[in-house]
Amino acid sequence: MSVPSWVADSIFYQIFPDRFANGDTGNDPGNVQPWGAIPTNRGFQGGDLSGILQGLSYLQDLGVNALYLNPIFFATTNHRYNTTDYFRIDPRLGTRQTFLQLLNEAHAAGIRVILDGVFNHTGRGFFAFQDILENEKDSPYRDWYHVHGLPLDAYGLGNPKQYEAWWGLRELPKLNTDTKDVREYIFSVAKYWIDQGIDGWRLDVPNEIDDDAFWQEFRTVVKSANPDAYLVGEIWEIDPRWVGDGHFDGLMHYPFRDYLLDYLAKGKTTGAEFSRRIGDLINRYPAGQEFSQFLTLGSHDTERLHTMCGEDIDRVRIAFLIQFVYPGTPVIYYGDEIGLAGGKDPDNRRAFPWDQDKWSLRLRSWIQELIRIRKDSPALRHGQWVPLSSEDQKLCVFGRSLREEDIVVVVNTTSDERPFSIELPETMSTGSTWTDLLTGSTFTGSRTIAGRIKPYTGYILQQAALLRERIQVNGRMSG
Amino acid sequence: MSVPSWVADSIFYQIFPDRFANGDTGNDPGNVQPWGAIPTNRGFQGGDLSGILQGLSYLQDLGVNALYLNPIFFATTNHRYNTTDYFRIDPRLGTRQTFLQLLNEAHAAGIRVILDGVFNHTGRGFFAFQDILENEKDSPYRDWYHVHGLPLDAYGLGNPKQYEAWWGLRELPKLNTDTKDVREYIFSVAKYWIDQGIDGWRLDVPNEIDDDAFWQEFRTVVKSANPDAYLVGEIWEIDPRWVGDGHFDGLMHYPFRDYLLDYLAKGKTTGAEFSRRIGDLINRYPAGQEFSQFLTLGSHDTERLHTMCGEDIDRVRIAFLIQFVYPGTPVIYYGDEIGLAGGKDPDNRRAFPWDQDKWSLRLRSWIQELIRIRKDSPALRHGQWVPLSSEDQKLCVFGRSLREEDIVVVVNTTSDERPFSIELPETMSTGSTWTDLLTGSTFTGSRTIAGRIKPYTGYILQQAALLRERIQVNGRMSG
Repeated sequence: MSVPSWVADSIFYQIFPDRFANGDTGNDPGNVQPWGAIPTNRGFQGGDLSGILQGLSYLQDLGVNALYLNPIFFATTNHRYNTTDYFRIDPRLGTRQTFLQLLNEAHAAGIRVILDGVFNHTGRGFFAFQDILENEKDSPYRDWYHVHGLPLDAYGLGNPKQYEAWWGLRELPKLNTDTKDVREYIFSVAKYWIDQGIDGWRLDVPNEIDDDAFWQEFRTVVKSANPDAYLVGEIWEIDPRWVGDGHFDGLMHYPFRDYLLDYLAKGKTTGAEFSRRIGDLINRYPAGQEFSQFLTLGSHDTERLHTMCGEDIDRVRIAFLIQFVYPGTPVIYYGDEIGLAGGKDPDNRRAFPWDQDKWSLRLRSWIQELIRIRKDSPALRHGQWVPLSSEDQKLCVFGRSLREEDIVVVVNTTSDERPFSIELPETMSTGSTWTDLLTGSTFTGSRTIAGRIKPYTGYILQQAALLRERIQVNGRMSG
Repeated sequence: MSVPSWVADSIFYQIFPDRFANGDTGNDPGNVQPWGAIPTNRGFQGGDLSGILQGLSYLQDLGVNALYLNPIFFATTNHRYNTTDYFRIDPRLGTRQTFLQLLNEAHAAGIRVILDGVFNHTGRGFFAFQDILENEKDSPYRDWYHVHGLPLDAYGLGNPKQYEAWWGLRELPKLNTDTKDVREYIFSVAKYWIDQGIDGWRLDVPNEIDDDAFWQEFRTVVKSANPDAYLVGEIWEIDPRWVGDGHFDGLMHYPFRDYLLDYLAKGKTTGAEFSRRIGDLINRYPAGQEFSQFLTLGSHDTERLHTMCGEDIDRVRIAFLIQFVYPGTPVIYYGDEIGLAGGKDPDNRRAFPWDQDKWSLRLRSWIQELIRIRKDSPALRHGQWVPLSSEDQKLCVFGRSLREEDIVVVVNTTSDERPFSIELPETMSTGSTWTDLLTGSTFTGSRTIAGRIKPYTGYILQQAALLRERIQVNGRMSG
């Protein structure tokens, strides 16, 4: 399959727009909560597109080069997954002009932007649903939803009996994508914002639109408008149906996150088991597809990484290390880079604390370092996965290879310093000196690398021969 | 008071957009009714802005030079008085581009355009109402309406208990114009469309916003954007409160219509009583204000003139004659000029029949003639009202005077030919020959004009001396 090559070269940053930065208090709702208030289901804290614009320098300093924005279209909630108008930027976030300015300035800074496409359901305020509420049997939009009876009781308690809704929530009526006009409407939205300059769509709950022909046409519409657009689906399970030339370039890789947390946070698997599991994950999808997976370690839908790791920065650092050396595009959920905590929704949507006293600078500089390492290493971005093993089953080891560059990763999440000995396959380089890109420590060995690894530590070992070459080319060395 | 002088020089044509002409079947709703179907409360027949654009040549041929459009903003009904979005043209009518093209082409043809401003209430789909439905106590828009309890039962049966609505109709929640944000929102809508080029606003049920300061500010906002903009209020009673520098330039003159129908259709008053009543009407308002009254003989809210007159074209012709010689701006409700019939709402909103076999060409050419006469006569447009009387109380007589031009109107709605003798006041011209602008018949008399008038006939007598001058200047004679 063909996927946009820029995806593997990207480091994404996911922003929940109401909570990243408030750049314009003039568009705050009248009852805006104080920045940093305990998140509630209904409260707004004033984050907006101007805030993201003003935050671009922060994001550049961090090193990310792509943004995924949670929904920004007009809606009645702070999460905006109940769309009222797909063609209108929510005025609490800014104007169309602000958004186009954000696109321009982000692009000028080398940062791509993808949006959240919520097409399975709408909000109750969406015009077609309102038309049915108003006109009932005379509404020309009756077949835009799955209507089983009229009038619709859209605002009462309990689940609606007269229409289908996402998870039975009457505030999220499910669109009927079998209706031609609905399909064309959705395609027109998808094309419109691509034409405005966005770099792709993250598709919300796409498996609820259980229709391959729909997604085939969706992909064709988007890719015709911009062949380089990135399509990523919110699919929580391992399911290759959703990738390929008829569907998406990548999926939100929650299974990768699950395995990582099983290993790192829950202690359910050993390092060896973990590396086997994430290696197997790659084989579950078509070859090449791994490079455009969307590697999320936490999102607006999950507990935050920091909280999952028991607020242990050492574990969080290792989680990021593994994310940055795995094939796919690493995604940082806003605030995760400074150690923001957060339990289940809505606690995982806390306002970004701009007071640096509240940041873990140790974590943030670690991530900056990982970003630099990844940007400097073609193998980490585009290299093949190389399954490796060590005798010590507690350690996680694997490799990445791209032409003359080889990487060997070793991770120790135990509380002991441990010896390691890793046999390399013949496909890997025959050089004898390996350097840890994080510390500069060197290890020798041609077919076997051996050494010791400290507790809660990871090495990203690169062939020194290559490393020397690269130092000469770049004039500097990472780490 | 200062009123836009172009108003008295205008002949308005009121269009109910769904029913004038279907210029673009591509924007019809899926369940569009056939053109000419019996009107229903909920059915659309496909009329649109392209239809009006294509109808401009028809309107120019008729002779009108101003349009009043019933609501064109996004809404769920064919009448669109339940606004969903004040900044969006209803897509069933066309795009913003179509509307701006209509404005441009109309202006190029010397035709002004005013829109219907519905600011007392919104539709249930309006964003602020939806926000309350969704967020209830957490909605920042709670004080945009008159909310007495939550949650709102907006789509049930009966009158809503939790919020105020126009006439208790829950589909039309009443805005709370005491709220500063609501006022500013309404003013921003008013200014926006004036800035886009419209020539004024017809204000729907403005007396339901019982707040002089609101309307003062509304007027200031509109007149600051365009001092020549026309503001006309839908006030059904005689009420001078609503005209002047703090309110509107004119009112929809339903009392004039009532008097006219009492005389002409219902036989409740004699001609003499009628002329006294419509003369007294003028004195109920500030001097000069009569020239900007909006003289409607029927609208989307009333039975049609043709039907009120028992489908008697002779009576309809006399109704138009009186309308065209009375101070104010004559308004033709679309289709009235070809004798379209229609009872109460929604029957008064029938589709315009473009098949000329269905037209009363006799009526239409009569109106074209009246338009030409009015355009040629400054006194009919800008002249003072001159109360006159004849001995025969069955006749309606009155005059208009402007500098050297004098007009005497005589109307006989009985079935007999009748003699008349009208004494003129000293303020009127001392010339001795009067010519009927409709037939060319002449009458003599200096202080008294005498003659006979046929049944169901009206004369518009003009001083012949002036008439001769005008013939020389114009090279042609009306009638």
